Amino acid sequence: MEILKLVKNYSIGVDREIENALDTLDPENLHSASNHIIKAGGKKIRPALVLLTAEAVGGNRKWAYKTAAAVELIHTFSLIHDDIMDGDEMRRGMPAVHTLWGEPMAILAGDVLFSKAFELVTQTQAEDIPSENVITALKTVVDSCIKICEGQALDMDFEGKLDVKEEDYLKMIYKKTAALIAAATKSGAIIGGGSEEQVEALSQYGELIGMAFQIQDDYLDVISDEEELGKPVGSDIVEGKMTLMVVHTLEAATDADKEELISILESGDESNTNRAIEIFNKYDSITYARDIALENVNQAKKLLDMMDDSPAKEALYNLADFVLERKN
Amino acid sequence: MEILKLVKNYSIGVDREIENALDTLDPENLHSASNHIIKAGGKKIRPALVLLTAEAVGGNRKWAYKTAAAVELIHTFSLIHDDIMDGDEMRRGMPAVHTLWGEPMAILAGDVLFSKAFELVTQTQAEDIPSENVITALKTVVDSCIKICEGQALDMDFEGKLDVKEEDYLKMIYKKTAALIAAATKSGAIIGGGSEEQVEALSQYGELIGMAFQIQDDYLDVISDEEELGKPVGSDIVEGKMTLMVVHTLEAATDADKEELISILESGDESNTNRAIEIFNKYDSITYARDIALENVNQAKKLLDMMDDSPAKEALYNLADFVLERKN
Repeated sequence: MEILKLVKNYSIGVDREIENALDTLDPENLHSASNHIIKAGGKKIRPALVLLTAEAVGGNRKWAYKTAAAVELIHTFSLIHDDIMDGDEMRRGMPAVHTLWGEPMAILAGDVLFSKAFELVTQTQAEDIPSENVITALKTVVDSCIKICEGQALDMDFEGKLDVKEEDYLKMIYKKTAALIAAATKSGAIIGGGSEEQVEALSQYGELIGMAFQIQDDYLDVISDEEELGKPVGSDIVEGKMTLMVVHTLEAATDADKEELISILESGDESNTNRAIEIFNKYDSITYARDIALENVNQAKKLLDMMDDSPAKEALYNLADFVLERKN
Repeated sequence: MEILKLVKNYSIGVDREIENALDTLDPENLHSASNHIIKAGGKKIRPALVLLTAEAVGGNRKWAYKTAAAVELIHTFSLIHDDIMDGDEMRRGMPAVHTLWGEPMAILAGDVLFSKAFELVTQTQAEDIPSENVITALKTVVDSCIKICEGQALDMDFEGKLDVKEEDYLKMIYKKTAALIAAATKSGAIIGGGSEEQVEALSQYGELIGMAFQIQDDYLDVISDEEELGKPVGSDIVEGKMTLMVVHTLEAATDADKEELISILESGDESNTNRAIEIFNKYDSITYARDIALENVNQAKKLLDMMDDSPAKEALYNLADFVLERKN
């Protein structure tokens, strides 16, 4: 897709910032452990959002590279620590950091990336960026970090619970996923020198596409074919994970359907996947999830109307669409 | 001791800042897990150093409360994560966070305290503090966090190694312990509006007493009586820990003494403690450690000469002495 080419292009400068930031880390095992997931790739959509929002409000992309790199490091830090907490052995098709270096070094690698992220934002300096804006960008980024921790705690709280309300589920994905994407678009707008209204609009834009991104993940798990998705369809069901479909169905279903769905989610048995999808469909939960994602993306795009036309604005528009167009 | 009364007095405002900062954390288990070690106490010397250095350069103590609270939260974060990494089940006479809440929640509790620390520094605002100074204070604090991670990685690298050079040992304790104490005194001086020379002198003061603090810890382990120390004498030897005495002896000793010391450190046998101390004494390693700590403290006190006389300056002087006077 055209938009992914642009994101890839923008990521060159981000990768360079990250490499410079991590270059001096000592000792060598800390250096390699903290670089591992970064070297494994990733789409780099979050840092592209920082750069694009900075440009969309009339700023220079160069001003925002350090903050963009910071946002990617925070994302990486949270992946490394989440993999330890969730006991996930693989990440981006490679062994997770704790799988290769052990938990103590993986904890440290996350901690040091977190520190490096803040170091990068404090290094943001350019004639046209007042120090107050750097502090506001820092506040934005740090606030999302607090939310990421809270979101992960909520997610862990959900484990084994099957009476999660839709409202609580949405709060969890807002904190765990959308808050950092909102921090990316908001901090980009701040560093780019956007007006208060622009900063607020782009912050909301980020939050909306962040929510849509997570809900689309839930949706893809049940409507894809395995080849496109790159993993077995229905694996969320087999793992008994909370998704928007699950919470929606559990709130609407008859006691009998509810009990059946719960027993499927608790079974871990792949052969039940289709039956769970049937129950979701009985309560229109799959359409419901898709509709919510679509509505979020449409609202996000509408918020861009207040911005002057520019290639960056068009890219943000296309990125919002990409959230729903992607197949994996 | 008089100076501990002053530190306790200063800690009241710091405790209030910390309580306010953590008050909103959600869900409740994240809130309690991240408060646990803080409620367990601690001497609060680091935050007192932030407040005292701010005052010593002519600033208002009030300006520095948020940074003082931040430094204490960073210290707490590192204790929580270190306890997981080192497998230590107890902290401050209480079960460690991971002992009570499990490792995943303990990782998160550390992460959220880390985030809250940076939030606190970004909230530092007063008419007389230019935003540039807040950013410089942030850089100071974040730089010490990177060093703490590197120091812990170096410390873990030392495990099982018995050919650690004195230089490497000193680098490790500088990063793991002294860097945060130096960040406390430096950031206090910055927030207090100190001159470049004052900031540099107080940063060095912090580094020197931080080094002395750790070396005194090593020293106390072999010269105390159990009642005063609050734990068995020689427990570093039983645990086979690197200390300044060990690295000094290993560099100076005959092959026979070296081999004997190594086999004692590897044995984990308490009955060998006195023999290890004999070997340390044969190479004057205990006196050597005490001399280095004393020299650091004297240098630290000398750096205070450039400051105008004030109660804060006197307290910093007394705190430097306290590092060597303390019995546990």
